[in-house]
Amino acid sequence: MESFVFINDDFVTEEKGLLHYRDLSIQRGYGFFDFFRVRDKVPIFLKEHLDRLFRSSEIMHLSIPLSRETIKSVIYSLISKNGISDSGIRITVTGGYSGNGYSLTNPNIIISENQFTEPKEVQYKEGIRLALYPYQRQLPEAKTIDYLMEIWLQPYIHLHAADDILYFRDGAITECPRSNFFIVTTGGEIHTAGENILKGVTRSRIIKAAMGHFELKERNISPDEALQASEAFICSTTKGILPVTVINGKPIGNGKPGPATQLLGRLVHTAQMTGSEV
Amino acid sequence: MESFVFINDDFVTEEKGLLHYRDLSIQRGYGFFDFFRVRDKVPIFLKEHLDRLFRSSEIMHLSIPLSRETIKSVIYSLISKNGISDSGIRITVTGGYSGNGYSLTNPNIIISENQFTEPKEVQYKEGIRLALYPYQRQLPEAKTIDYLMEIWLQPYIHLHAADDILYFRDGAITECPRSNFFIVTTGGEIHTAGENILKGVTRSRIIKAAMGHFELKERNISPDEALQASEAFICSTTKGILPVTVINGKPIGNGKPGPATQLLGRLVHTAQMTGSEV
Repeated sequence: MESFVFINDDFVTEEKGLLHYRDLSIQRGYGFFDFFRVRDKVPIFLKEHLDRLFRSSEIMHLSIPLSRETIKSVIYSLISKNGISDSGIRITVTGGYSGNGYSLTNPNIIISENQFTEPKEVQYKEGIRLALYPYQRQLPEAKTIDYLMEIWLQPYIHLHAADDILYFRDGAITECPRSNFFIVTTGGEIHTAGENILKGVTRSRIIKAAMGHFELKERNISPDEALQASEAFICSTTKGILPVTVINGKPIGNGKPGPATQLLGRLVHTAQMTGSEV
Repeated sequence: MESFVFINDDFVTEEKGLLHYRDLSIQRGYGFFDFFRVRDKVPIFLKEHLDRLFRSSEIMHLSIPLSRETIKSVIYSLISKNGISDSGIRITVTGGYSGNGYSLTNPNIIISENQFTEPKEVQYKEGIRLALYPYQRQLPEAKTIDYLMEIWLQPYIHLHAADDILYFRDGAITECPRSNFFIVTTGGEIHTAGENILKGVTRSRIIKAAMGHFELKERNISPDEALQASEAFICSTTKGILPVTVINGKPIGNGKPGPATQLLGRLVHTAQMTGSEV
């Protein structure tokens, strides 16, 4: 089956998904995006992802060239045309074709769909390893295309026998490059950063899911607190909830995924599978 | 006359200068570039710019898919094909078409030429106004495509009645988004930042030109020192030396371009016009 991508005002076949080199994403790294799951041809948490897309647009001073209703209609057409049941859809908005190479102009919008590959099952069973790195994402509340440091740090991750990076700055942990970070304290509370982060859709789901089960606090967590936590986990649209069992080579808690992480994982997984409120 | 751009292995007409949306510049803002002047069809300081291009390549873990000799030959062919006497040539190297959206793959290279527009004469006569902003460029010694903050700060520049931004972090001024920054102290010394900056080709020329005329120091300059300087100026390939007469609304020295700035401007201008050593 031929695969389609939507660019600006038209569906084109995958190989025709092209931007001119003058686009400000290519020239100046200027753009933002959002990404959501599609299960059985149903977009999951679409409202929340579109809310965040429009929030990124405001922060970046870059208006989205299509209405919310048109974007929705394009998404459903794309799902129908491509015929993939289980996919990820990405909406990318760039600075456009700029005459002088830095002034913002008419943005370009690309809506693309990919077959979704589930993260490895072993990572859910055994947890992942993080390596701390001092860094603060630029314009953290916008989902910009700026992943310069994440990509640049791939050899660092490998060198430190880790699976991903955990950013901190001025004594406070913020987030992983593409996930939010939580700890479960030895007192059984759930803590996560409340500022200088991208507020993930799955993060919001966890905060809701935790109500009635746990005390939850949004606050600055120091690297030391994280190392001494009872449990830790990360979350994202792609991963759901993924236990963190090692930070900087040190086991967290007993070095295995803990009960609070597993309970939250079950609660949020149900919501993610159905798009329902938890 | 038809205009050409070189992409990967071929000269194509300007409108065919296209990259696929999966390129890591569009997806993740990952790429680097260099830019140099062409006068009377002669590239100016080409060796220095190619040296820096290859230095950026090392820092970014992204190999340039053409040899230095091939790049030179493409540049001379491009100048000949386009027939523009006075131009700017940009060499852009991106992360390539990545299957998983973040692993580096075969880079794409674009070599493009534009008619060069001289900066406004009045800016040389009257100087420009800078507004301080706390920020440190990511991977500062590489000429990455990351201009997220510069573009995002355009309304800030306008609001502060400035012409450009002057970055500082932890009490030390570094650079402007696309220029290096110098002061002339009341004692007649030339000072400029020596670390956490992109080392400009024109900056190196100034350091050489200053020898025998001035005491020159590469050191951290605080915002207060800059505000109390006798003169200030910025430099770049595009601008040469441009006097700075106002920082954060406060006149520098007597608020007019000073004699040291003008002397260095003459020395470096001569070198820039001819590509000769100063």
